[in-house]
Amino acid sequence: MTLTLDYSKALEKVEDLAYIKHLALASKEILEEKSGAGADFLGWTKLPEDYDQEEFSRIKEAAKKIKGQSQALLVIGIGGSYLGAKAAISALTNNFHNEMSGSDDLKIYFAGQNLSQSYLIDLYNLLKDQDFSINVISKSGTTTEPAIAFRIFKELLEEKYGDQAKDRIYATTDKEKGALRDLAVKEGYQTFVVPDDIGGRYSVLTAVGLLPMACAGIDIDQMMEGAKAAALKYSNPKFEENDALLYAAIRNALNRQGKDIELMVSYTPELFYFSQWWIQLFGESEGKDGKGLFPAAGSFTTDLHSMGQMIQDGRRNLFETVVLVSKADKDLTIKEDQDNLDGLNYLAGKTLSEINKKAFEGTYQAHVDGRVPNLLVEIERLDAYNLGYLFYFFQKACGYSAYMLGVNPFNQPGVEKYKANMFKLLGKPGY
Amino acid sequence: MTLTLDYSKALEKVEDLAYIKHLALASKEILEEKSGAGADFLGWTKLPEDYDQEEFSRIKEAAKKIKGQSQALLVIGIGGSYLGAKAAISALTNNFHNEMSGSDDLKIYFAGQNLSQSYLIDLYNLLKDQDFSINVISKSGTTTEPAIAFRIFKELLEEKYGDQAKDRIYATTDKEKGALRDLAVKEGYQTFVVPDDIGGRYSVLTAVGLLPMACAGIDIDQMMEGAKAAALKYSNPKFEENDALLYAAIRNALNRQGKDIELMVSYTPELFYFSQWWIQLFGESEGKDGKGLFPAAGSFTTDLHSMGQMIQDGRRNLFETVVLVSKADKDLTIKEDQDNLDGLNYLAGKTLSEINKKAFEGTYQAHVDGRVPNLLVEIERLDAYNLGYLFYFFQKACGYSAYMLGVNPFNQPGVEKYKANMFKLLGKPGY
Repeated sequence: MTLTLDYSKALEKVEDLAYIKHLALASKEILEEKSGAGADFLGWTKLPEDYDQEEFSRIKEAAKKIKGQSQALLVIGIGGSYLGAKAAISALTNNFHNEMSGSDDLKIYFAGQNLSQSYLIDLYNLLKDQDFSINVISKSGTTTEPAIAFRIFKELLEEKYGDQAKDRIYATTDKEKGALRDLAVKEGYQTFVVPDDIGGRYSVLTAVGLLPMACAGIDIDQMMEGAKAAALKYSNPKFEENDALLYAAIRNALNRQGKDIELMVSYTPELFYFSQWWIQLFGESEGKDGKGLFPAAGSFTTDLHSMGQMIQDGRRNLFETVVLVSKADKDLTIKEDQDNLDGLNYLAGKTLSEINKKAFEGTYQAHVDGRVPNLLVEIERLDAYNLGYLFYFFQKACGYSAYMLGVNPFNQPGVEKYKANMFKLLGKPGY
Repeated sequence: MTLTLDYSKALEKVEDLAYIKHLALASKEILEEKSGAGADFLGWTKLPEDYDQEEFSRIKEAAKKIKGQSQALLVIGIGGSYLGAKAAISALTNNFHNEMSGSDDLKIYFAGQNLSQSYLIDLYNLLKDQDFSINVISKSGTTTEPAIAFRIFKELLEEKYGDQAKDRIYATTDKEKGALRDLAVKEGYQTFVVPDDIGGRYSVLTAVGLLPMACAGIDIDQMMEGAKAAALKYSNPKFEENDALLYAAIRNALNRQGKDIELMVSYTPELFYFSQWWIQLFGESEGKDGKGLFPAAGSFTTDLHSMGQMIQDGRRNLFETVVLVSKADKDLTIKEDQDNLDGLNYLAGKTLSEINKKAFEGTYQAHVDGRVPNLLVEIERLDAYNLGYLFYFFQKACGYSAYMLGVNPFNQPGVEKYKANMFKLLGKPGY
């Protein structure tokens, strides 16, 4: 079992779930039969079994080529063209990946995810004396943040390498149209495809996420294998046996019972950006028509020392979804100290991962006692296979969940409003 | 004017504020007269005018000494012994501070803020071949996470430097008692004081925050000057002229009107950890007795591409507090591009900071139109003076706000529960 869902401390009564079962099954049917809103964007459901093998091979070859030509890869993207790769790379590489000297893998930097002048200047100064390549990721090529970053760093590449710059630029974009596609054709960049039937926040297992991951040394074959196993697992039509459907149903039930906030908690700091990916997935899929649970993230035990008080004793309007990793691939053992002034000798012989696990158990019990419903999603280990599985689990659950809520899981009409205002203020033609 | 508060888009009617004025003034009185709950922990209010000058000088000397002896400083602490320094260093140093070769300032790393075996192993491998010093920060010396990290890295220092290791360890702890004080006396570490009358989340302007900041090259004299100006400003007894009191009153009014979530937003990614510091400050001060606004953070424009949809169109149960920085100390200008395939030439000649400002204005208007109350806290520039001012502003506002809510701003009884469970599970003597 790659993933287990424990919801024994989530709902007060088993009947809470029975009430919601038929709605959950109806939502599953809408998704599987592609009969719901946004059904043109369900390409991600079949992706792990039915992806472009030729492109997949090209991704691996491009990663090899980039490693050969550069010390660093600059990934330019925002939203769904940023968070999936960032989540996977944070989860699966060294905590100080870019700083570790002698690393066999490329350093990976991100740009185009903000409009900060200081961030871009600092990054520019860091990269200008390194050999680097760019993976620019944008369906249209005109999204403001990545387009600006790409202009800046493309110019730097051209200054450094002249006509050879184009061999260091890899564009992940629409398969035939759009500004970035046109530029790639004109300049001769190698290209990868953002599929038409997969929205940004569901695109982590396409070239959007996979090329940066491969460059960071992540085993993307294993990632797809994990996702494939999850796709099979969560096609199960039986409510009680389909954890993605159960998770969707339980959070819907909790929302109906007055919970407004879902806090994704992990005891693995490497999963911080996974939580950010999950926040976009659920927040953007569900936050519409005046609905949706507010998704927030907690990195424990760190945030027990900031938000622990409020979770324990504040308003009872939140629940926690804890993502647990069972096994540690490396570990540290606490040693005996002769003086024991810090009083830690009672931990001697224990490993850090055991202690962290007890911190989870103690917290779980305390928060449940404090009437905070808790859901546990446990994976075996933090590797590419399990992470691929986890990505797919939450994507499927999110599709179910949004249909249960009665919203289109695949659009984001609300994000146009600030953009239209901004373009008008900036004097963009047509606004 | 260092800081301006614009609340014109926060409350629907001016009367909303009039209703709350007397409560706000009463809370101010309780705080100033030290007549409320937790009044023994008000040392931070007078800190900028009345700090230990001798220790302040020793902090600056210690920073110089550490720079002379090491390439890196490892700061060991959690909660309030972590977030203030982390916030200031993230805000005021290069975005890639530790990676910038040839940096005059020390690299700064953090440990003791989690129980992650992989984080500690990765950090160990990174530090083992560098010259480093340690600033261990703990009132008691027995808090689990920092105590474990200190055991591990103290041993590494002793392996590397033998008897000289003690000259590389700087302990910030209780002035006379506790495990870390005892160890410091025994081993001869240089020490700094965590005052008795200042709780962790209010301690950023003590040695707790100041020594790591000084090591990172931050001008702590300016930081204290800014805080001093704020202390003077927010002692103003007139409700309408005291922005810290107004901010407290408005968020209280919004809470009464059914808002459950306060989202601190910034367009300056360097303020991400400042938001985390603010989350602890307000979450831990107010999240008790079933009360408190849920504090969350957004880094824009990044998170407009993940949470923007929900903020615009989701449940109307949140409001935003935007921390704006008026002036950029360095900037980038968008250049004309001959082909203009990305369509960005309409931005040519504009600076990034202007564009980012327009993104804010467009978003502000869109969110207000979407019925999300917005509060603006604007500072002139991101420097030590303004950040010191900002720290003090929010601390003072938090004290007022918690008293308005009817809770003790300075305790955290709820965090003991999970600890007691954890200690029992780990077999700690006495549990």
